[in-house]
Amino acid sequence: MGIVLKGGLVASPSGAARMDLRIEGEQVHSLGFDLEREGDEVVDCGGMLILPGGVDPHTHFDLPAGDFRTADDFKSGTMAALAGGTTTIIDYATQFKGESLRQGIEEWHRLSRGKCHCDYGFHLAVTDWNDEVERELPQVVKGGIPSFKMYMAYKGLLQLDDGSIMRMMELLRDLGGVLCLHCENGDLVSSMGERLAREGRLSPRYHPLSRPSFVESEAVFRALTMAEAVQAPLYVVHVSSAKSMEHIRAFKERGNQVWAETCVQYLTLDEGRYLLPDGDASAYVCSPPLRSRGDVEALWMDLEGGYVDVVATDHCSFNLIGHKDRGLKDFRRIPNGLPGVEHRLSILYSEGVEGGRISLGTFVNVVSTSPAKIFGLYPRKGILLPGSDADVVVFDPNSRWTVRASQQVQRVDYTPYEGWSVTGRVVSVYLRGSRAYHRGVFEGQEPAGQYLLRRGRKEEE
Amino acid sequence: MGIVLKGGLVASPSGAARMDLRIEGEQVHSLGFDLEREGDEVVDCGGMLILPGGVDPHTHFDLPAGDFRTADDFKSGTMAALAGGTTTIIDYATQFKGESLRQGIEEWHRLSRGKCHCDYGFHLAVTDWNDEVERELPQVVKGGIPSFKMYMAYKGLLQLDDGSIMRMMELLRDLGGVLCLHCENGDLVSSMGERLAREGRLSPRYHPLSRPSFVESEAVFRALTMAEAVQAPLYVVHVSSAKSMEHIRAFKERGNQVWAETCVQYLTLDEGRYLLPDGDASAYVCSPPLRSRGDVEALWMDLEGGYVDVVATDHCSFNLIGHKDRGLKDFRRIPNGLPGVEHRLSILYSEGVEGGRISLGTFVNVVSTSPAKIFGLYPRKGILLPGSDADVVVFDPNSRWTVRASQQVQRVDYTPYEGWSVTGRVVSVYLRGSRAYHRGVFEGQEPAGQYLLRRGRKEEE
Amino acid sequence: MGIVLKGGLVASPSGAARMDLRIEGEQVHSLGFDLEREGDEVVDCGGMLILPGGVDPHTHFDLPAGDFRTADDFKSGTMAALAGGTTTIIDYATQFKGESLRQGIEEWHRLSRGKCHCDYGFHLAVTDWNDEVERELPQVVKGGIPSFKMYMAYKGLLQLDDGSIMRMMELLRDLGGVLCLHCENGDLVSSMGERLAREGRLSPRYHPLSRPSFVESEAVFRALTMAEAVQAPLYVVHVSSAKSMEHIRAFKERGNQVWAETCVQYLTLDEGRYLLPDGDASAYVCSPPLRSRGDVEALWMDLEGGYVDVVATDHCSFNLIGHKDRGLKDFRRIPNGLPGVEHRLSILYSEGVEGGRISLGTFVNVVSTSPAKIFGLYPRKGILLPGSDADVVVFDPNSRWTVRASQQVQRVDYTPYEGWSVTGRVVSVYLRGSRAYHRGVFEGQEPAGQYLLRRGRKEEE
Amino acid sequence: MGIVLKGGLVASPSGAARMDLRIEGEQVHSLGFDLEREGDEVVDCGGMLILPGGVDPHTHFDLPAGDFRTADDFKSGTMAALAGGTTTIIDYATQFKGESLRQGIEEWHRLSRGKCHCDYGFHLAVTDWNDEVERELPQVVKGGIPSFKMYMAYKGLLQLDDGSIMRMMELLRDLGGVLCLHCENGDLVSSMGERLAREGRLSPRYHPLSRPSFVESEAVFRALTMAEAVQAPLYVVHVSSAKSMEHIRAFKERGNQVWAETCVQYLTLDEGRYLLPDGDASAYVCSPPLRSRGDVEALWMDLEGGYVDVVATDHCSFNLIGHKDRGLKDFRRIPNGLPGVEHRLSILYSEGVEGGRISLGTFVNVVSTSPAKIFGLYPRKGILLPGSDADVVVFDPNSRWTVRASQQVQRVDYTPYEGWSVTGRVVSVYLRGSRAYHRGVFEGQEPAGQYLLRRGRKEEE
Repeated sequence: MGIVLKGGLVASPSGAARMDLRIEGEQVHSLGFDLEREGDEVVDCGGMLILPGGVDPHTHFDLPAGDFRTADDFKSGTMAALAGGTTTIIDYATQFKGESLRQGIEEWHRLSRGKCHCDYGFHLAVTDWNDEVERELPQVVKGGIPSFKMYMAYKGLLQLDDGSIMRMMELLRDLGGVLCLHCENGDLVSSMGERLAREGRLSPRYHPLSRPSFVESEAVFRALTMAEAVQAPLYVVHVSSAKSMEHIRAFKERGNQVWAETCVQYLTLDEGRYLLPDGDASAYVCSPPLRSRGDVEALWMDLEGGYVDVVATDHCSFNLIGHKDRGLKDFRRIPNGLPGVEHRLSILYSEGVEGGRISLGTFVNVVSTSPAKIFGLYPRKGILLPGSDADVVVFDPNSRWTVRASQQVQRVDYTPYEGWSVTGRVVSVYLRGSRAYHRGVFEGQEPAGQYLLRRGRKEEE
Repeated sequence: MGIVLKGGLVASPSGAARMDLRIEGEQVHSLGFDLEREGDEVVDCGGMLILPGGVDPHTHFDLPAGDFRTADDFKSGTMAALAGGTTTIIDYATQFKGESLRQGIEEWHRLSRGKCHCDYGFHLAVTDWNDEVERELPQVVKGGIPSFKMYMAYKGLLQLDDGSIMRMMELLRDLGGVLCLHCENGDLVSSMGERLAREGRLSPRYHPLSRPSFVESEAVFRALTMAEAVQAPLYVVHVSSAKSMEHIRAFKERGNQVWAETCVQYLTLDEGRYLLPDGDASAYVCSPPLRSRGDVEALWMDLEGGYVDVVATDHCSFNLIGHKDRGLKDFRRIPNGLPGVEHRLSILYSEGVEGGRISLGTFVNVVSTSPAKIFGLYPRKGILLPGSDADVVVFDPNSRWTVRASQQVQRVDYTPYEGWSVTGRVVSVYLRGSRAYHRGVFEGQEPAGQYLLRRGRKEEE
Repeated sequence: MGIVLKGGLVASPSGAARMDLRIEGEQVHSLGFDLEREGDEVVDCGGMLILPGGVDPHTHFDLPAGDFRTADDFKSGTMAALAGGTTTIIDYATQFKGESLRQGIEEWHRLSRGKCHCDYGFHLAVTDWNDEVERELPQVVKGGIPSFKMYMAYKGLLQLDDGSIMRMMELLRDLGGVLCLHCENGDLVSSMGERLAREGRLSPRYHPLSRPSFVESEAVFRALTMAEAVQAPLYVVHVSSAKSMEHIRAFKERGNQVWAETCVQYLTLDEGRYLLPDGDASAYVCSPPLRSRGDVEALWMDLEGGYVDVVATDHCSFNLIGHKDRGLKDFRRIPNGLPGVEHRLSILYSEGVEGGRISLGTFVNVVSTSPAKIFGLYPRKGILLPGSDADVVVFDPNSRWTVRASQQVQRVDYTPYEGWSVTGRVVSVYLRGSRAYHRGVFEGQEPAGQYLLRRGRKEEE
Repeated sequence: MGIVLKGGLVASPSGAARMDLRIEGEQVHSLGFDLEREGDEVVDCGGMLILPGGVDPHTHFDLPAGDFRTADDFKSGTMAALAGGTTTIIDYATQFKGESLRQGIEEWHRLSRGKCHCDYGFHLAVTDWNDEVERELPQVVKGGIPSFKMYMAYKGLLQLDDGSIMRMMELLRDLGGVLCLHCENGDLVSSMGERLAREGRLSPRYHPLSRPSFVESEAVFRALTMAEAVQAPLYVVHVSSAKSMEHIRAFKERGNQVWAETCVQYLTLDEGRYLLPDGDASAYVCSPPLRSRGDVEALWMDLEGGYVDVVATDHCSFNLIGHKDRGLKDFRRIPNGLPGVEHRLSILYSEGVEGGRISLGTFVNVVSTSPAKIFGLYPRKGILLPGSDADVVVFDPNSRWTVRASQQVQRVDYTPYEGWSVTGRVVSVYLRGSRAYHRGVFEGQEPAGQYLLRRGRKEEE
């Protein structure tokens, strides 16, 4: 007994074609015509897009931030993901100062176990680098976590020096792993922040002045230079500026294995938001900050041009009341981050595909296929081929609706897209063959998400 | 009753996955597992790659060259194509001086009708530009030929001036067509040839000195500039040099719709061949000429990097004895061109995929998917999706064999790859659902190739 | 007996310093303090700048244009030059179709002999290229004319094909000469002009649309490519666009010997002028046309950055009434060109030095020293060193005045700078030791200008 | 009574011309012909070049390095400078950790006072950055030291973070000063050094592996980015690599005020030296290290192209026996630096001008005029104009001699140029009008060098 999704337009990075898709058990069984067998459930998908489930490789659920945590934990976060058509998230487990890598990973398992409504994996953010940690690395990679993160920013907190970063690149190159890098020059951010403080310019609108785009593009160039020097792959998280992309394009052209991730917010919002009243402006405080309209347009062009590889969310939700408002008098104390996991597909489809800026193939690639490939989940995830996990999104490309925080699943008191009119909506979501979400309703008793062991990068995939 | 290709690795630009493929009638019916139905023929494809049939968008069959014609006509040419795994060719019909566009097309229909063993379409090369011709254009595009060619070289013969070329770009932009451009500076080629003649340097080894790479890269830059100025798409045929690719990359980065085609010979042979004894050297006289090792390596890098879009052949076969030897005393009289349609897939697979320079996905894309998309045949051709034409190549990736002119199908007295040891071989070829070639034998009574009406370029494919 | 210019600020490309300058006979005798000797005439130059006489290497005097000639002949043209502080002009003698080089030169001698009020030399524009002409070249270079011009524009009239141009580059490279090139793609200009004509867009405001900046930058790139290919020096006349300068900078960086000339009009006027009423707009019809504000600003930056080598005038004066008005109904019939030789120094000083965009050293370099060096006149011209010709301009940097056609010396019925308020004015001009102009009055009986034999380019000057 | 240098070729950045030069008192009185007056001493300079005294803006005399000091103090160092045709040096006074700026300067006055045989000034290297220091800055600039240095390398010792560096740029921009920056990524150098140590690769030949050229070019790019961001001038000391120059050229092109200094050793020696036996290799240990032949050739090209502004020495002499040999077992303990002040002019003239790589004008500019301008000494120093200090070098361009440590003035036990055959030699040196050195003999009783107060950078010089 299987399920036949009938008459939809099945999408992949190559585009979309009308055909039926048959699910058997947890996998896609076949694609074609006239596929139903006895006992099959047949679902009419006429007029629908059939998408591979979204893969969001950049979330922060249940992340501690001083004396509080992000608004979304793994339960609310993965429910929001699922409702938004994302069936796999990769969260940044973090090794904090003084911890071993294993401690970081175990803590993240503790936080997530039994709570996830979609499949999930971990990257590991390393914030304390020493010989001990170096020795732990190989077993972490072999244990299913081949991707790591380091920060060039957040001086004194998360920031590591260039020597450690380049050493990590070398180690991961040899282990078949990949380094995800937060590229902003933390020394400059810190220095510019102090200067703004001395000048008394501490309201939220000054946040972007403490980290202008050259602070990012410089760090991107530095990271690319190091990666090229040791011939290691590099994944640049949340690229926000045209200048950074210029460097990335140049290094790609020279044959380096480098990937650029941007986030929905950098494609749709701009720095004008910081001029809103302080309380509203605080909603948009994130790092890197929102950029100019020119940067936004350049990112779209690089997205369709194939130079941006992934559109993620960096979902890191903090409430306006209780979290963000702690820094209204000093932007440096506003917890950085925006929610987004729930609206990624809809917003990107509406602004991108419907808006005529990117093709449907590009859309599928950057929200699903490409992150699955980069992070060792393909072709289990990221594509609808016979044998792939039947993570399927039935998407109505013509449905028009309005984004409202009051109606959202994610457990945070605002959305950056409040009131936006959006074309394209998730109708049903299948997770490994079972329908887990349908028109606003979560189906199935228990959180069904499984933890994903991921493969390291190899020559040929 | 259908055919089930069972147990193969079905390839697409995204890579390859093990699954079965079922053919019904002329189309692919389904992909998946456990697909066979009563009455189906089941073909064991274990260990085989299942490729979409090759699309070679650059051939010259039965082309007049002074008082003789190319060695291959449409019969021998398409048989060679089929034997080599290419199920679609697009040949350059040519409007010669004094002819209408219609005359050019009709002549090509006359030459090809009833003779083709694979499916075929035409581009139309325009060598005489005037108001009459301008008026004919729309109906040619609507009639199924949306792609045209012009020459920046062959002064006094085929060459058109920049004004005509840019005008053509504009017209095709509005008609949804595309211009394919031969980019070499014909004035310089002519002038440098005359100079070599004055110096008595006329043996075949001087051919490349009459058209060094800057002659190509300059013309490429000029063409790109014009296309950008009028915001028209541009397809650069047979790119041979690193410098040309540098320009193409830069214009792609700026968001222009430009495609680069290279040919197997530019990826595998180099200018050293011109130092062979005159008779042997003449075999390699083509335009642009073979380049330096550095150019060759750069092309491979741009191929895997996604900057080269198509690998074609520019198949234009002349016999060493009777054709090429007419110019042994004056390289300018050697007919330009190389055979290649028969060996394109094998050589590129062996040197590229087996040689570790490109991925399987890239291979499939540049020999099939990408040309099908650019030239209005996708998803009928270029991919194996339910509903696509069942043009299928069963390819043995482990078979090792040796290229020999004495064993080839193409009707020319040499091959540039004589004696090469190759890994990967075409086993069977299905043309629209019927097996037309199997292990050296052509099956079916009649030439089964159909003429293809092609669609113009539209926004969304 | 000599002349001592006392107390001025003597200027050179390195800047300016207060010192006295003593003239003896036709040369500068010494620089320093306390120089006067018995019998010397002492001229108080307190508050004045002492400049080396201007060298304008791009004029067209007495040039035939169909059935009329430029408004200025060698008499009025050189008087205007002198009044404006230019003591040397290099005019473009022209070999017209069917003529020998010698005929072109002789005609220019005939036109200029005995009429010049400043020193003068010739370049030779070659518009008919053949073996005869090639044979004449060496003696022309040896005879004191080492610089030549060719046109990539003016199809069917002056334009030569790329083969001839590259051949000329090679010949001049070996002879120690230099090619000055008018870089616009003539085929495109012609084609775009015809199209505008078909559309009935023929009033003067459409002139710039027939030759947009890519038409220039493409030709500049092509010319640079050819010069680099044969390792020949290249002088690009009247560069008007930012994009062209981008190419020139890149080729300079790679070590090519290439010089960029711009003209005063491209630094001070913009395309807005073409929107004036037709009669007024016609005044600004020149090739290349005036450009955008962005281009203007970029040229200033490249001027101070040292990438633009020369500021000339391309002085080619036509009257509004009688010449320019012939094309009011068809811009293609408006004679191209602007007057400028009289106001070059004042306008450039006022807008550039006084306006804070360039240094005094840059000013002196681009109006005098640099052209003298490039064209084989240095250190006789272009600098005030002991032994140099005493071509000296006493310039009052603080004098404010207003440009008026009604008060100009050049014999044309308008000036592009009408009504401009200018800071900086020529007070006196010495030509080879004799004061030839002083506060509006021409001194000396006869035209004292001498014809200058120029040296070819050598390794070390 | 004056001195007339008669019949020499007086050189400046514009080239050279035959004329006499008359000195009166400490200044140049006049240039020209027939200048001698009663009582004048006339010196026949036929066949000689007359150069403005060299300005070496990068020396380290009497510098502490752990428990010893450089081999040359201000006495031997300035005697060597004078003997080599350098009449002005600018030494890097250093504020060490815990000191005020004033303490650093006073210490340097103590070390140099009364000992200098040529004129001298100080830059101030800042290694401890805090609010106190920030407050001291304005008075230091006003007190005649407008140029400062910071280090991006020497982690834990001299290195400052990017925040401090960018802050310093801003302050100096407003004060009219300039920052000289040592650009190497100290974190990477330290990390790579540790790694080499772990691997037991510590002999001198591994020194360059601890600081490959990307370590420099990355830091150069970072520095340029910061300077552009705050629109501050930047002087990059001892540039050694082609890649660094590529960045500098790009930022210059964009209109930034940035200068590149290289040193004689980077133009003449290459990394092959590190393969010599350990004791010999240690002689060449400096930072940045000697580079590849390709880098060397690129620097020459950028020198003649005008992209390198200054050729200095970074004279920092340590003896092979007693200093350098302390690190034969661990290259990290070898004191970094090379001697060079004595041979700068001769070596650069011989290899550059005589070798046909640069013009005489370029030579004069980079060893004298340009550093004088950049560091606020022009036109008092750096040029021979009436009114300039009569710092004059009589240089015999035809004298051939051999460099020998055994015959050198600098007090160090080797020279990197041992045994080199050199064309061009200093004959006499005048310091402010008095002959201080002649054919190997120091003239005058006392060290005659004066301390120079320097002007800050202003718009127009």
